[in-house]
Amino acid sequence: MNHQEALTKYLAAFITGLVQAGIKDVVISPGSRSTPLALMFSEHRDVNVYMNVDERSAAFFALGLAKASGDPVGLLCTSGTATANYYPAIIEASLSGVPLIVMTADRPHELRDVGAPQAIDQLHLYGSHVKWFAEMALPESGVEQLRYAKTTAIRAVKEAMVQSKGPVHLNFPFREPLLPTLDPYPFEDEASISIEEGILFLPYEKLKKYAEQLQGIERGLIICGQIEEPGFNEAVTTLAKKLKFPILADPLSQLRSSSILETTVIDSYDAILRVKNAVATLKPELIIRFGGTTVSKSLSLYMKSLNDIEQIVVDSGSHWRDPNYVGTTMIHCDEKAFCNELATLIQEKTSSSWLSKWLKMDEVAKSTIRKHMQLVEELEEGKAVFELVNLLPVDSTVFVGNSMPIRDIDTFFHKNNKNISVMANRGANGIDGVVSTALGAAVYKRPLFLVIGDLSFFHDLNGLLMAKLHKLNITIILLNNDGGGIFSYLPQFGEPKHFEVLFGTPTGLNYEHAVQMYHGQYTKIFDWEGLKMAILDSVSYEGLNVIEIPTDRERNLSSHREMWEKVSQEIYLILQDVEK
Amino acid sequence: MNHQEALTKYLAAFITGLVQAGIKDVVISPGSRSTPLALMFSEHRDVNVYMNVDERSAAFFALGLAKASGDPVGLLCTSGTATANYYPAIIEASLSGVPLIVMTADRPHELRDVGAPQAIDQLHLYGSHVKWFAEMALPESGVEQLRYAKTTAIRAVKEAMVQSKGPVHLNFPFREPLLPTLDPYPFEDEASISIEEGILFLPYEKLKKYAEQLQGIERGLIICGQIEEPGFNEAVTTLAKKLKFPILADPLSQLRSSSILETTVIDSYDAILRVKNAVATLKPELIIRFGGTTVSKSLSLYMKSLNDIEQIVVDSGSHWRDPNYVGTTMIHCDEKAFCNELATLIQEKTSSSWLSKWLKMDEVAKSTIRKHMQLVEELEEGKAVFELVNLLPVDSTVFVGNSMPIRDIDTFFHKNNKNISVMANRGANGIDGVVSTALGAAVYKRPLFLVIGDLSFFHDLNGLLMAKLHKLNITIILLNNDGGGIFSYLPQFGEPKHFEVLFGTPTGLNYEHAVQMYHGQYTKIFDWEGLKMAILDSVSYEGLNVIEIPTDRERNLSSHREMWEKVSQEIYLILQDVEK
Repeated sequence: MNHQEALTKYLAAFITGLVQAGIKDVVISPGSRSTPLALMFSEHRDVNVYMNVDERSAAFFALGLAKASGDPVGLLCTSGTATANYYPAIIEASLSGVPLIVMTADRPHELRDVGAPQAIDQLHLYGSHVKWFAEMALPESGVEQLRYAKTTAIRAVKEAMVQSKGPVHLNFPFREPLLPTLDPYPFEDEASISIEEGILFLPYEKLKKYAEQLQGIERGLIICGQIEEPGFNEAVTTLAKKLKFPILADPLSQLRSSSILETTVIDSYDAILRVKNAVATLKPELIIRFGGTTVSKSLSLYMKSLNDIEQIVVDSGSHWRDPNYVGTTMIHCDEKAFCNELATLIQEKTSSSWLSKWLKMDEVAKSTIRKHMQLVEELEEGKAVFELVNLLPVDSTVFVGNSMPIRDIDTFFHKNNKNISVMANRGANGIDGVVSTALGAAVYKRPLFLVIGDLSFFHDLNGLLMAKLHKLNITIILLNNDGGGIFSYLPQFGEPKHFEVLFGTPTGLNYEHAVQMYHGQYTKIFDWEGLKMAILDSVSYEGLNVIEIPTDRERNLSSHREMWEKVSQEIYLILQDVEK
Repeated sequence: MNHQEALTKYLAAFITGLVQAGIKDVVISPGSRSTPLALMFSEHRDVNVYMNVDERSAAFFALGLAKASGDPVGLLCTSGTATANYYPAIIEASLSGVPLIVMTADRPHELRDVGAPQAIDQLHLYGSHVKWFAEMALPESGVEQLRYAKTTAIRAVKEAMVQSKGPVHLNFPFREPLLPTLDPYPFEDEASISIEEGILFLPYEKLKKYAEQLQGIERGLIICGQIEEPGFNEAVTTLAKKLKFPILADPLSQLRSSSILETTVIDSYDAILRVKNAVATLKPELIIRFGGTTVSKSLSLYMKSLNDIEQIVVDSGSHWRDPNYVGTTMIHCDEKAFCNELATLIQEKTSSSWLSKWLKMDEVAKSTIRKHMQLVEELEEGKAVFELVNLLPVDSTVFVGNSMPIRDIDTFFHKNNKNISVMANRGANGIDGVVSTALGAAVYKRPLFLVIGDLSFFHDLNGLLMAKLHKLNITIILLNNDGGGIFSYLPQFGEPKHFEVLFGTPTGLNYEHAVQMYHGQYTKIFDWEGLKMAILDSVSYEGLNVIEIPTDRERNLSSHREMWEKVSQEIYLILQDVEK
């Protein structure tokens, strides 16, 4: 059997395995060494190929596809430094549990480390940041080799999809010539290997013990960060309603917005817990925590201060999510199963003054924020986000940049029944790759609004190419304070000598040029009415749509401070009422 | 001693060590966790700080600074995915032997792998691609800790600078608060550790043996790739002149251009060795090879075919540069010393018909290329590069993109006495980071011309920000064939079904918008006269200057083929003369 036939059959077996295991989308960057896989993926009828010249953007685009579809996504590039450009997105995928099948083409063994061009050491290239690495064999077409190729593909997807999900890396050495045979159609429908994944259940006796304990607790709290598991939200809200425990719901928990208004969900805890007296009066007996790290700093400090109560951390992955070292019980089991099983064992409580107190404060905090916002006349970021979330249409998705936007969403994305999804890259919280991730998500989510600061937008400007090439629809709300806005909130602000150079980092760029280059629509906002009109118009706009809101870093800071101060005063008044 | 004082003294000791060991330039990306080092570097009177928002560009910019200055350069970023953006440039630095001191800020140990934000596993983050990794201790200010910090800095620079040079990585855990004390000036002049590096000499008896052997060889060849060692070029040309061996000089060897015309240098071997009969008649008895892998494919095939002669590979690094497995002797010693010592032992030969034959063919190849170029009327890439090299001013630098530009420079950059430096990223030959590397080099080299294809230009568009922020001078010759031109030269071109999508990858971008955003001058060329004017004008232009040459991939290909065919015919005629 000749080289070309072996190459074709081997890769056909491999790709058949990937497709059978659930791969539909593959993001490819151009290159020579990756030619065999690139051609074979393009030829497969059930694979969508997305081309992306910049591998860094390509990997984040794949991340967005996987986050939004819930399915594993393939990534392919050539040998050399191209592969290293995947690293930021791979780390994000690893920490946020997103399944990626990373395929790198490589020189064959005899051309490694002997000065051959574009040959770098690609073995274990991504270190501890992938769940699994395999160096693939050179293509051969014996029965056993084909079974190996196909099984490895299926296994790679399985490794990526099992809890905690994440990226895997396969490195493919290819010898020249690199062209497979595409005629006749090289893929056959063949028997697959089916995979059944077990679920981590807590034994019945243990669950019963927890149910009994929780039944007797008045002042309990549930804290939810990001969890992707379908059905978890119904399970945890059912449990919370029975227990009458407030759920402090991070914006990424997706608990703040569904088709029904969740009555036990609290969303303004960040404002409430900034108030010292509130923290003192809101001391729980017990906390149950689910999901990723929550955005709110005041919530983190609150949890940290509660080092004398029981804090139960439930996690189906192998994480140890407890940066404040206050967890007292680490439960390693499926979160949805845990909530569902517990709920069946618990008798619904009739009322709770504890829950009422939280709900009351939540309402006061929100109405104070709303009133403050009505008075804001000049453009600033808090109100921009506040206006956006009010205007978001039903069933839309808002992708949120890191640094300030996610904090503003935390503050202003209040409980509603519009079934809005909130997405963000909160594995490593990088400002890199956000445009590409949002565009990848936009393939599956529509309408999609990206809220992003100017530095993060700049960092991944190249990502915009995908909107042009693949005719994707996205509205980008660009909060342009010309630099790093978040640093004004940090102690670095007190170091005026080097502040503006090291932290303010103004770029002075007019992004209208960039958006024009990508054939997008660009609207600069001058007042609140203009913003409203632009957002309302965006719903029907096809393609890349960028709405720039020019803001001022100092004004953002002072308006935020003024708002927290007002909330603090109102909460203080409520507390006096409560104590009377 | 309090936290802030310890932080300040520890980092002052560390930075004093870096500066004493030769660090002048540090490229910093904004971030919070890196605040202590960022502030301290900014405060140091002898450190130039370059701010760069995009860490990928930042690392390539640092690479360019180090390549052009010959000195080690520092890189600093915050924790999280920011660090991973350095990876492509680190790999390039590793393979091309460029000294970088990579400093990543990190969370302290207690905030790692417990769900704290922006905390990723940064230990051995760059795997086998750095020469040395050290996890730094938390800042303390005891006498021994300060000595440790300073010594580690000096040692890090030493590790980066010793043959083969390359990147090192130091990871810094920092606890909050992150602000050091800048008043009073925290750096003191202190005693340093001086470092003496040995040189690898070959023992005299061995050298004598080689001298005797070489003295008796008529048909010897020297092949030179890229070597950065000062003085090597004088040494190797002296040796070649004594032996009357032609030097096949890669454009990156810097042997094609100096203040004197080197008579034994051959630069058109790529054209000559494409001709079958030439290869047959140009069979050497022995080859001595120095430096990095040469660009020319025909030279590589030629060396590969010579598997029955002696091929000596001299390398001061720990490489094994022999991708064709035809090396018969691997000499691990200093290249300059090897040439100098040998030259003293060899008696100058009076004449050589072998050298004359090479020089004759070289002249014929070049004059044929020149004549062909005079006939080219429409814009195409080969002639664009040909025109550029003719117009380059004395003492200028041309930075060359990978893929096609470096191949065109190989073909058209002919022997001259204009003392022009040719630079490129030929460690891993990536198309990524080229704009930033060139801009980093432009700090030290002026005037600097970057010759680059559109995909490579697109890949690092963000790099242009440094030209705006730091007011750098660069002329970019953008060869815009709207896609991946090199693939038309490869077998993939024969796969029409998927070719344009997977390999042609047209982006359809008008880069004038991008250049406007960065406040640069943009000139689109329509004919050869226009190109000449634009290049002549560029010499006096201050700032970012982009000259776009729109070309056509098919025309580039056919013009190249026509030219090789003409050269082949002329060489063939010469060979007939020679044989008569």
